[in-house]
This record gives sequence, C-alpha cells and structure tokens, in this order.
Amino acid sequence: MDIIDLRSDTITRPTPAMRKAMADAEVGDDVFKEDPTVNRLEEMAARRMGKPAALLVGSGTMGNLVSQLAHCGRGDETLLGDQSHVFFYEQGGASALGGIHPRTLPNEKDGTIAPETIEAAIRPDDVHFPQSRLVIVENTHNRCSGTPLTAAYTATVGRLARRHGLKLHIDGARIFNAAVSLGVDAAELAAPADSVTFCLSKGLAAPVGSVLCGDEDFIARARRMRKSVGGGMRQAGIIAAAGIVALTEMVDRLAEDHANARTLAVGLAGIPGLGIDPDAIATNIVYFRVTAKGLDAPAVVARLGESGVRVLPTAKDQMRAVLNYHVTGADVQRALAVFSRVMKG
Amino acid sequence: MDIIDLRSDTITRPTPAMRKAMADAEVGDDVFKEDPTVNRLEEMAARRMGKPAALLVGSGTMGNLVSQLAHCGRGDETLLGDQSHVFFYEQGGASALGGIHPRTLPNEKDGTIAPETIEAAIRPDDVHFPQSRLVIVENTHNRCSGTPLTAAYTATVGRLARRHGLKLHIDGARIFNAAVSLGVDAAELAAPADSVTFCLSKGLAAPVGSVLCGDEDFIARARRMRKSVGGGMRQAGIIAAAGIVALTEMVDRLAEDHANARTLAVGLAGIPGLGIDPDAIATNIVYFRVTAKGLDAPAVVARLGESGVRVLPTAKDQMRAVLNYHVTGADVQRALAVFSRVMKG
Amino acid sequence: MDIIDLRSDTITRPTPAMRKAMADAEVGDDVFKEDPTVNRLEEMAARRMGKPAALLVGSGTMGNLVSQLAHCGRGDETLLGDQSHVFFYEQGGASALGGIHPRTLPNEKDGTIAPETIEAAIRPDDVHFPQSRLVIVENTHNRCSGTPLTAAYTATVGRLARRHGLKLHIDGARIFNAAVSLGVDAAELAAPADSVTFCLSKGLAAPVGSVLCGDEDFIARARRMRKSVGGGMRQAGIIAAAGIVALTEMVDRLAEDHANARTLAVGLAGIPGLGIDPDAIATNIVYFRVTAKGLDAPAVVARLGESGVRVLPTAKDQMRAVLNYHVTGADVQRALAVFSRVMKG
Amino acid sequence: MDIIDLRSDTITRPTPAMRKAMADAEVGDDVFKEDPTVNRLEEMAARRMGKPAALLVGSGTMGNLVSQLAHCGRGDETLLGDQSHVFFYEQGGASALGGIHPRTLPNEKDGTIAPETIEAAIRPDDVHFPQSRLVIVENTHNRCSGTPLTAAYTATVGRLARRHGLKLHIDGARIFNAAVSLGVDAAELAAPADSVTFCLSKGLAAPVGSVLCGDEDFIARARRMRKSVGGGMRQAGIIAAAGIVALTEMVDRLAEDHANARTLAVGLAGIPGLGIDPDAIATNIVYFRVTAKGLDAPAVVARLGESGVRVLPTAKDQMRAVLNYHVTGADVQRALAVFSRVMKG
Repeated sequence: MDIIDLRSDTITRPTPAMRKAMADAEVGDDVFKEDPTVNRLEEMAARRMGKPAALLVGSGTMGNLVSQLAHCGRGDETLLGDQSHVFFYEQGGASALGGIHPRTLPNEKDGTIAPETIEAAIRPDDVHFPQSRLVIVENTHNRCSGTPLTAAYTATVGRLARRHGLKLHIDGARIFNAAVSLGVDAAELAAPADSVTFCLSKGLAAPVGSVLCGDEDFIARARRMRKSVGGGMRQAGIIAAAGIVALTEMVDRLAEDHANARTLAVGLAGIPGLGIDPDAIATNIVYFRVTAKGLDAPAVVARLGESGVRVLPTAKDQMRAVLNYHVTGADVQRALAVFSRVMKG
Repeated sequence: MDIIDLRSDTITRPTPAMRKAMADAEVGDDVFKEDPTVNRLEEMAARRMGKPAALLVGSGTMGNLVSQLAHCGRGDETLLGDQSHVFFYEQGGASALGGIHPRTLPNEKDGTIAPETIEAAIRPDDVHFPQSRLVIVENTHNRCSGTPLTAAYTATVGRLARRHGLKLHIDGARIFNAAVSLGVDAAELAAPADSVTFCLSKGLAAPVGSVLCGDEDFIARARRMRKSVGGGMRQAGIIAAAGIVALTEMVDRLAEDHANARTLAVGLAGIPGLGIDPDAIATNIVYFRVTAKGLDAPAVVARLGESGVRVLPTAKDQMRAVLNYHVTGADVQRALAVFSRVMKG
Repeated sequence: MDIIDLRSDTITRPTPAMRKAMADAEVGDDVFKEDPTVNRLEEMAARRMGKPAALLVGSGTMGNLVSQLAHCGRGDETLLGDQSHVFFYEQGGASALGGIHPRTLPNEKDGTIAPETIEAAIRPDDVHFPQSRLVIVENTHNRCSGTPLTAAYTATVGRLARRHGLKLHIDGARIFNAAVSLGVDAAELAAPADSVTFCLSKGLAAPVGSVLCGDEDFIARARRMRKSVGGGMRQAGIIAAAGIVALTEMVDRLAEDHANARTLAVGLAGIPGLGIDPDAIATNIVYFRVTAKGLDAPAVVARLGESGVRVLPTAKDQMRAVLNYHVTGADVQRALAVFSRVMKG
Repeated sequence: MDIIDLRSDTITRPTPAMRKAMADAEVGDDVFKEDPTVNRLEEMAARRMGKPAALLVGSGTMGNLVSQLAHCGRGDETLLGDQSHVFFYEQGGASALGGIHPRTLPNEKDGTIAPETIEAAIRPDDVHFPQSRLVIVENTHNRCSGTPLTAAYTATVGRLARRHGLKLHIDGARIFNAAVSLGVDAAELAAPADSVTFCLSKGLAAPVGSVLCGDEDFIARARRMRKSVGGGMRQAGIIAAAGIVALTEMVDRLAEDHANARTLAVGLAGIPGLGIDPDAIATNIVYFRVTAKGLDAPAVVARLGESGVRVLPTAKDQMRAVLNYHVTGADVQRALAVFSRVMKG
C-alpha cells in the first residue's frame, strides 16, 4: 500500500538534487565560521529576507528560542498569540531556559492579533511588571488554518512595536508559503521585523535546518545563544548544501501544495460528517472537524491510517492535513476517496 | 487635611496591640528554627488553614513565588487566570527566576476560571509541550472586583486537578475577606488546595508578612526555596508577633471594610460620570470607571488627591478603591462628597 | 543553666532601644516608597557607605542575590572565592534563579583572592565563554577566619575590575567588623565597589535586615529585582527602625566582640587537643580544630552543649565560635573553663 | 601552500564513504522517531557504549547540556573539574539556561579529580546548600593533555557517586581516543556512568553530531530536553548515516593520530624555545609552551600560520596541536620543520 502522508510538511525527504549537493558540499568548521557552504547559505538567506545577516540553526524551535534569548533578558516579557507555535509547541523553552515571560494574546481566526490588543498589553515601567520587550507573530500561522499575514498587517505591528521600543520577531517557519500565497516577496513580509526565522525543512523539503535573519548585532548575539544551547555544528555545510537547493529550487513549487490543499478542502467540504470552510485555506495546511455523531478524530485518523492516508489528530474533534512535496494531485483524489469511504463507515 | 487613603489595604499601619506585641516579642534565630514567636504563628496559621504546616514569608509575592518553586520544576507549566495577581503583578518572577511557564486562561468576571477551560488546557505527555503541574486560583480575586471564590468552586477545581495529577495553589492574599464575606471558615476554602498563602499585611493590618500553608513535605521544600530567594529572616518573631495579633484580633473586623465598600459602591453608582455595579462588590475592593466625557482616570485621581482622597488608577478609564482598617464609615461619606464635587468639575 | 551561644552572631536579639524604636516607628507602605523610617535608614546607610543610594532587604542572602541579578544578565559570569559565603552558603541562588555562572577562584587564608588570579580568569570575548561581569569579594571573610580585607586590597581589585569593564560587589555582611578592626571608615572599604551589602542583623544585633548600597541606577534595578524575589515589604519601617539603632549605637561596640574573640582564641590555643592560631583572629569569628585523637568536632560540640556552651561544627574536625552582643568577657572565661573540662574528657 | 591544520580535530571533513552514505541515506521524520538511519545509529551507539538507549544530538555541547538538564533540576549542583570542557568551553549553559550550579574541583594534571576531593565536596542536606546531584568527568580530558581516564578511576568515582545518591556523567567527546589509547572497550570506560556522550565529529570525522547514551528513562527525559533546546531535527538520518560510517570505520584509525601526536611531541621537545613533556601525550592532543624569551604564543601561532601550519593559542604562552584524520605522518615531519624554522627566528 502506498502511504499518503499528510501529517505534516516536516516529513518531506530531500530531493535528488539535495542529496547530490550534500554529497559534493565543500565544508569547513562552522564554529570557526569556515564552512563556505554555510556562509553561502547564510548570505543567500539574508538577501532573500532583506536582512543584513543570517544564521543557520538546527530547527525552527531553535531559531525561535535563540531569537528570544538574543532579544530578551531574564524576566523580559514577550507578547505572542495564544495559538502561536512558539507558545503552544515549543515546550515553553524560552521561559524554562531563558526566564522569558510569555504574555499570550488571543489570535484571531486569521492568525493575527489585534494591534490594539497588543498595544494595550504593553506594560508600563513599574516594579510589579516584567518589561515588555518583544512581539512575536507567526507567518503563515499554523494553528490558524495556515493563514498568511499580509505585509500591511505586519507593518502595522512593526510600527506599533517600534513606537513603544519593542522588537518584532516573525516566526516565519512557512513564510515562503505566505509569500507565494500572497504573491509578494518574502523580504516584503519580513521588512517590518527585527528578526525572522524560516524553515528549510518543511515545504522546502530540506532534511534539516532553519535560518534566522536580522541585523549584524542581533545575529552576533544569536550566534552566542546558538552556541549556548548546543546548536553550533561543525561541518554544517552538508546541511546548508541542501538548504541552498531548497531556497533555489523549491520555493515556487509551494504553489502546488496550496492548489492541492484547496482541492482537498473543497473535497472534504463535500463529505458528510466532516466540517471545513474551504475558503479559509490559503496555503498548505488544512484543519477540519469531525461532525459525524459517534465519531471522534482519533477514530477517524485510525481508520484513515488503515487505508494508507495519514493525518494528524489535533483535538478531540479536529484533524490536520498538510500538503507537501510528496503529495501529488492524484494523491489528493485518492485521499478524498478514502475519506469518503471511511466517513460512510 | 486628613488623607483618606483608598489606594490599597497594603497601606495599613500596625495597631497599638501589634506595636506592643512587637516590642515584647520573644525571639530567636528563625533560620535555626529557634524563634518561638515565628513557630507559634506558623502553628496558628496552619491550624487556621487546616493544613499540617506553615511558613512565614516576607510578602504575598514571595509566598506565591516560593509555592510555585516548591511545586514546579524548571519548564513545568502553571494554569492561572489572565487577570490573576500572580500573572499580572508579580513581575513574572516564577518564569524569570524559576523557568516556570505560565499558561493564562480567561478569568470570568467573578474571578473564576471555567473548570472545563482548565481541563482543556492540561497538556498531554508530548515533547512539544511543557508538563502541566499546577493550577492557581486567587481568593478573593483582586482584579475581578475582589470577588470571593466559593468553597464549592474551589473543590471542583481541586478534584479536577487531582484527577489529572496536578497540584492546586490558592493565592489567598485576602482569603479571610472571602471567608468573612461568605460566612465560612477559611480552612473550608483552603481544603481543596495543596497550598495556600494569605497576607498578614493587607486587611489584617500587620506591617509585614504572609504565611504559606501546606503539608510537611511541601513546607520543607518551600523553606529551601524561601532561603534561596533570600527570604530567611533571623529574629522574624518581631514580624510574627504582629501577625499573631492580626490573626487573633483583626479577622472579624474585615466585615466593616466590606460594609464600607458596599456603601462606597452604592454612593459612587449615584454619581454622574462614574460607572459601577454595586452588586458586584462583595468584599473590600471597589473598581469603577470614569464614563464622563473628556475625563480619564488619571485626571480624576489627581483631582481627588488634591482633596485628600487617594485612589489608584488601574487603567485609562478605571480606578480602584480599597477599604481598609484606617477608613471609617464617616470617611466613606466624606470621600463620596469629594467624588461628587470632583465629578461635577 | 545559662547558655553561652557562640554559634553565630546572627542569633543576636534586639536591644531595648531597638524594641522601643520598633514600637514607636513611623511607617508607610514601602512598596510605594512611602515609609519614612525605611527612607531614613536607606539615606543613612548610603551616606555611611559613601554611595548615592541604598535599599533595605530582608537578609544578607537577598542582598547578594539582588545585587547579582541587578549586575548580571542571564549567562553572565561572576568571579568569586571558593570559600565565599555567596558561593558556599547561599544555595547557589544566583545560578539557580538568575542563570548566573559562578567561577570560583581559590581564597587565600586571609580571604583575599590573588589579583593576578582574578585577572587571569576574566574571559575573552568568544562564543565558547560566558561573559565575565562581576567580581565579588567578602569583607570580613567568614570562612577565612573572619579576616578583614584592607582598603588597599579592595582598591586593587576595583581598579582591575574597571580596567576590564567588570563590576565589583562587596559582600560586606560584616564590613563594620572590618572597619572597626582596621580602624578605618566603612565607606573607605566600600569606595572601590559598585555595590556593597551589609547586615543589620549580625554583630549589630538588629532582628532582621541588610542594606544594599550603590548608585541610583543600580539601586533602581535592584529595587525591581527585590520585588521579583518577593522582597518588597510593606510597613518595613518597623525593621528599619531597629536598623537605625543598629547603625547609630551598635557599630563601635563591635570592638568588644573582637577583644573577646582574641581572648577566646588565646585561651583555646592553650587547651590540649585543640588547634588554633590566635594571631589569625582579627574580628569576631574564631575557627579552631580538634586535634585530640579519637575525638571529632560533632562529639566536642555535643559535650560543650551539655555544659551550656554552643558552637557550630563546620567540618569533621573544625568548629566555629562567633563572639556577639550577648557574650561578655566573663562568658568567655566561663566558656574557656568548659572547653578545658570537655577536652580533658 | 598546503595547510596543515592542527587547531582541532573538529575541523575534520567527512570521508568519501560518509558522503556516499549521506547521499544514499534512508530518512524519515526523527521528531516522530521515524528516521530509520537515526534509529540504527542510536541502537549501534547504545550497544557500543553498553547502555540501553541513545540519542543523537547536534553537538558535544548539546549532549552535555541535555544530560545535565535531564539529570538535574533547577538549583541542583554538579561537581566537575575546573579544567573541564563543560565548565570551561560551553558558555556556562547548564547554569545560564538550566539554573544548575557548577562546583568546580581542581583537575589533576592527568584529568582526574581526586576521589576524596569529590567526596568532600558533596553537600549535606541543609537549606544553605544546593543539592549535589551529578558528578561529571571528561575522557579523554582535553585541557589536561588529552589524557585518558582509566576504567578503574571511573569505576571508583562511579561507586562514590552511587554511595551518595549522585549520578555520574562522562563527557566522552573523545572516549574512543581513550579506548584506543588504553586498549579497552569504550563500554568498559562507560560502564560506571549513568550517562555518556561521545562525538562523531572530532577524531571520527563525521561532519556533525554527538550521541548521548544512558538508560531508557534518562534518554526519554533527554529527548524532551533536546526538543526544548531546539535540538530535534527532522531528516537527521543524513547526519546519522555519516555517524554510522564514523563508528564503523573510523575508530581504529585513531591510533594513527596518537602515534602522530607522540612523534610531534617528541619533535617539539627537541626544539629550543618550546616546552613540552612528550611522555604526557597519550592520545591526539598536544599542548606545549613557548619558553623562548620575547616570544609569546600568539606571535608563534601567527608565524606558523604564515608557513601553513595552524595551531591554536590557548594561553599567553601556550598552544595546542590536535592530530586528526587529515594530518599524515609526513605532515608531522613537515610541521616540525616549520616549527624549527619559526623558533629560530
């Protein structure tokens, strides 16, 4: 049975071009900053995000952690969405390891946080309060239907942050999905931010790695923080080589995932017992609900799995499918057929 | 001009009986556990809260911090109200110093958090998540109109916590206000909790100190944590002596503050340009809004101050008055007269 | 039986003048900075230490913790003696709570750390290293025979620290003992330091409290840190009142403790089975060894206790006696008689 | 000019076999534990170290950090050498991020810490002290001439640790160098330890990665901690594939590095102006001093560099050469010729 794996785009395996690039990569010791391939990836990434400097890290979580450690001292407060990946799925590492106090604000359905809500949450200078230091937004927003944040929204938040002396970080794990979906340059989406991370290993299909971009001073501090969490890798050019292929060859391809996601969503909307608004799907992430009586998400997930379709249960009555490099248009049709059969019982 | 200070009940000065008790206190070195007056206060407090053991600390904030440090390891998660004192007014210390991750849940107007909201927020065992460890409720709830939590509510939360292997801490800074208002024993309110703090220095008028109560093991850990934050004091019997007077003589008196608060609230409700629901006032804390056009809270606070009435601005359009030991019924009438005059412009 | 308690000078109970001062103290809410007695003590302490500002804290440990938190960010490194109180007896709080990395350097017998050792330990700027931030010295040095550090030594360390952009903190828990012993002003000893703490509650006999002194910016940061550890106390003027008496009336008296310590040391040196160099005793702390065969410190301590003389065992073969306000010259003679009897078996 | 790079064995580039293995690696999402190559490496590593389980991490520093986080809670104390890599070169991360208090003990010249020194440093249960939790030894010991610790020494420390309820961690970054040098199995060296890390990326020449080994419970906790520091990587099988080659093909080869190191050391000992005891060199690390008047290490390093020989200055008068996969016996002779010429001026 051929598996259609829709659990996440993190499951993507490297392309042949990436494998060749890794095998041939010129490498050095990146802790000495002597890995030419890492240096090349970092320059390319910085340019792509419109920032002066960049830093390769081992994961999106490390990128966000290191950014927070570099922006915030012990006891500083971040303002971030209550549905954000940083708050929800990163084990609270910034707090656990960095003593950074998270203040969650309600995410709207589209992944934004109302600017006035952010502004109202900024703390005055008073010994009772932590010091507000950093706003974090997520683009695209995973738990909010993978919705892209517009450049206009982020610019508004950026101005607000600067006005109050705060920094803005974008968790741009899937910022290229946003860019492709919105038809803008990723740099335009990143422009209002002091720092931005993006992942090489999700839709872009590289095996490992994320990149953190910002100004020289920030990246110098982030490099220290990367070392402190054990994120300094030696001949990381192996990883970077695949990352260069990801950046060069794999970005435009994301449009296919988005088209497939829309097709899947429209199909799911037609299946009795499932609930979804296909119009909310703008990128590659499809959340949908089980509305059928007597069925819950884990049960549906289990039955789908028996038929070779893997999706992720994300709540009692909710599942997630993420379109990715290994899922073709034909796979989507096949998956929809399985869904229909499973929901009929 | 005689000042009527309604900013907080923390401003209360010790009674003559307390001053005498402090002057006469038998003391020893409490770090060696040899201060007889501290020992006496701790026994009395434990008994009063229905717990096996107790620990004197220097402030309510220290009581809550030490409790969290004793219940939670690095990276554990607390579930607490988004309006809670612990989250709002304690500088994020548990996170900053203890690496404890706060997960805020919406406080209802009455200071509760819906039990199903708490239950839904408990994390499954997964490397992406911190481990849920501690539920914190606040009784009375300062930012929610000083509302008391009933024993029934707390019992529900306590059962829920135990069912999931979590601990329950009550920030009972003003738990005696709750007990007096509800007409129950403080021990009944504390019964469902693994730990509870209460303040000697607010409505009870002692100059300094709070007490943390729980079982022997918890208090032993808390004693270690108190030492680590520098909270071990030497001849603390001086402070404890006033605390014993507070516990013995000052609890029942809180009813007067509550009656005065109600009188004040009813009076404020009758003043044009101010907004308040007097029926929401069950203890000694009175929040009210400025609804008059062209006026904001800081402006009103400033004018009141010029006439000898001190209240605290708590938002652009909100103020707080806290009835306390130094404010008599006559003072309330006088304050209302000032309010009327100020609001008339 | 009249107990002679030589375990520590922390056991000192307040004087009648202190008790009266506490009973009569004018107080306010120190979190609002409105306690006139606290303000008076802080001004007096600052002047006494030759610093622009001061802050009352609940303990010497809190003073040192808050100082480190105010000087050092997460991951900064302190350089301090391997026998220092901060490293040895404060539960590692700066590291546990503040993420501050201690680098211990060998204390000489006289409590100093060789300046060249300090200088060699300062880290270059490199991602492998924490950033050296703070040098801590202790005056008098408890575990090094209570030896006072001279102004000349501290000045040398201060210059060294400044030359490398580091700060200098003096744990001056017993700096007045140093001042009295050396015949200099405490301010002279504190002059080279960016911050200094001293205790009101040891030789000066106040029941509770220490004071932290430094410049305005530092004290503002320290005030924040004090709040975060729960060290903000309300009507702390009660404690401050005793502190004012301590500072005013009790400093010169320390000379008696020093004389008694020397008498005790000379006496102990004459008792077979005990080892001590009386010439090393310059203040009020007397460490001595059990050299008698078949006896260890806990056994000797137990026997002494049965005869009403209390000392502290500090190692298998070592004990400590600390002269203090409650121990007279006659008590010393009586204690020596007990020692003689006990060592004879 | 052909560079002879002796700065570190971290500079080693992957072998052709590794490049092929990486290009061909079967991979999956290791956060879902579905990467077959990672699983295979972890099983192989666990078996090799004689432990039940293993975990791939991105660096030696991450291995040590994650181990400490998994063994120690906030405020626990580690006992480790004052020359240890963990203390010296890992930015104090365990303290900065984990609130773990390091207690350094003097390393002997051979990299051991005297067992009685360890035992004397274990803290009794007392609120003044952190709780001793973990002993860390380093094998081979980088800063102590790369000396291997014998199985007998480690067994002694292991028994001591267990007797006091402490855990033992081996920083075995170069434990295979120790095994080869001592002619024993690495598992024998690791047997007394609760956890051990080793590096794939130093002498074994893999581009990236270290492995942490221990029992199932420990590895489960370590996996959580790895995730929290951002060390969870997706298709990490790419890295693991090279690691498998490293473990399979590159261990025995270390003997060549050791022979070359000895040759280099003997040669250096014969060059006027350099100081070294060749008998201290048992593995691949060669520290030596500049004894020539008017010359310091940076100057010598600079001149060597001009002639294509790269070594690392490690102090004013000290340098380090590390033999590695890319340095042949002929290179050593060539390097010695350059040294001779440079030292002659």
